[in-house]
Amino acid sequence: MKTGLVDIHAHAFPRITQAEAAAADPRAPWLEDHADGSGHIMQGDKPFRPVQAQLWDAAQRLRWMEETGVAMQFVCATPVMFGYAWESARAAEWAQRMNDRMLQFASADPRRLKALAQVPLQDIDASCRELSRARESGHIGVQIGNHVGMKSLDDAGILDFLRHCAHESMPVFVHPWDMMGDERMKRWMLPWLVAMPAETQLSMLSLVLSGALERLPRSLTLVFAHGGGSFVWLLGRVDNAWRERDLVRADCPALPSSYCDRFCVDSAIFDEDALRMLVAAMGRERVLLGTDAPFPLGEVKPGALVEGTYADDRATREAILSGNAQRLFALG
Amino acid sequence: MKTGLVDIHAHAFPRITQAEAAAADPRAPWLEDHADGSGHIMQGDKPFRPVQAQLWDAAQRLRWMEETGVAMQFVCATPVMFGYAWESARAAEWAQRMNDRMLQFASADPRRLKALAQVPLQDIDASCRELSRARESGHIGVQIGNHVGMKSLDDAGILDFLRHCAHESMPVFVHPWDMMGDERMKRWMLPWLVAMPAETQLSMLSLVLSGALERLPRSLTLVFAHGGGSFVWLLGRVDNAWRERDLVRADCPALPSSYCDRFCVDSAIFDEDALRMLVAAMGRERVLLGTDAPFPLGEVKPGALVEGTYADDRATREAILSGNAQRLFALG
Repeated sequence: MKTGLVDIHAHAFPRITQAEAAAADPRAPWLEDHADGSGHIMQGDKPFRPVQAQLWDAAQRLRWMEETGVAMQFVCATPVMFGYAWESARAAEWAQRMNDRMLQFASADPRRLKALAQVPLQDIDASCRELSRARESGHIGVQIGNHVGMKSLDDAGILDFLRHCAHESMPVFVHPWDMMGDERMKRWMLPWLVAMPAETQLSMLSLVLSGALERLPRSLTLVFAHGGGSFVWLLGRVDNAWRERDLVRADCPALPSSYCDRFCVDSAIFDEDALRMLVAAMGRERVLLGTDAPFPLGEVKPGALVEGTYADDRATREAILSGNAQRLFALG
Repeated sequence: MKTGLVDIHAHAFPRITQAEAAAADPRAPWLEDHADGSGHIMQGDKPFRPVQAQLWDAAQRLRWMEETGVAMQFVCATPVMFGYAWESARAAEWAQRMNDRMLQFASADPRRLKALAQVPLQDIDASCRELSRARESGHIGVQIGNHVGMKSLDDAGILDFLRHCAHESMPVFVHPWDMMGDERMKRWMLPWLVAMPAETQLSMLSLVLSGALERLPRSLTLVFAHGGGSFVWLLGRVDNAWRERDLVRADCPALPSSYCDRFCVDSAIFDEDALRMLVAAMGRERVLLGTDAPFPLGEVKPGALVEGTYADDRATREAILSGNAQRLFALG
């Protein structure tokens, strides 16, 4: 068994009943447990996604962690739980209930499972209140979706929320959701393969090109899922556009790539060449192990990509596999 | 002066008058020449995009090529000229007229300027006819947009067209256009920075995951713009998804990355690490110099990225800068 891996990107879904979901909002998701190790996330009477028991059963999760050498895992909401499009009072109440459920999941072994909160991001005041409450009750950070309807992360209200997170020393994990696209994306999980990485890049660029990073405290920790999507790969294109086109640099005073040190990313990139390029661009102190467990598009052998890529570079390996998470999330 | 560069990705726009455009279709673009070296592509009475005289003035283009060491350049339509949403007979007539205009542009120095045709891709029979006519009249390949409305490249009709291109030995250059996205993309040229690379990746994945490449002849030359967008960067994610998720591999019999040898890409990627990863994935015989001239998001110093990245590797340098284009486009 490997020891010491800290996985900062993993999902959970509470055992929400259909009645509980219906009472919250017609769009609220719930869990249909098939009692054979599998189940479905449902919305109303419709299956949203097939899932495995590890998603809701903490004992099974801990067993998998034992087998795969994950010493500690951060669990956060499955994005369908966000409720950003709901009436805000309902969403605030829901976020509170879901956050308590996540702590309950983590309570199966609170040294090994840590919870990231969710907030009703359509309501900034309510989000700030819930963030503070979640911190008090034991959450070690917060996960947000990469946008709220047509608001990107550079929205003035969302920036206020991010400042509040910095003030509370709560790291923010940004996950793509509610993906762009059209009928051409219906098959082969193309929204996960094409639109998710584009959504994440869009969010990071919105913070850079709006100049928002100039107005956010450097103490804010922002961690983007899936290696930051296409952000690093396309930085050369973006830098070139910034140099050559007034529209691109209108609100951004410095070269886009110079803002890399304001972002962290997880390592869920599935390719050694990509991981090397990611670490070269972001710095080894800003890449953190993330598996996307327990979903099938996640890393099957946690840490294997990092270990293979940096077999001869212990410092980089340890930084990505545990050290960066321990430092940025202030783990004992 | 450098010698010998062959630039396979450059655009032109004929001196279309407002009357000529209006007679073709209300959406047809035309050129407003400000007679000071600048102008606007217009649609109806609305400016679509500011442009420089190099776009329509072949003498100026040749002067720039002389200064920057581009020995030969392929010119193709600016995508707003495609007309894929028009009534098909009008679009067919327009494509024919535009193709003749492109040859006229190239006639300023037919040894140094080569034209890629356009086709009315909403009508496959008309597209095949125009492709054959264009080949007869001197075009050395064809440019297509990466989709036609909700039809991706794996559409049965488009596959028929691609087979016809293979039969006629006409390489196909695929350019992103009509980009996905919403209000969050309105600023800072985000459609060019986020959606164009996602569109290209979507097209390449549509050919891979549909299994279409199993049904297309290996003799077909497909060249994708902008280094294939995000395709290579996200191949690890796609391979992992193919292995782990039945939905992803349903129509695709082999590992997605095993199809890289069916694609070529241009080198317009603006970053040395990205270029190295691109060449490692695609093979040095399938990356071709492309500048995206004369647009501001193009390569400012043609060939400089390739020369810098492969300063000590003459074979790779020469393959990308000219050899691959000469071989694939059968240049004398």
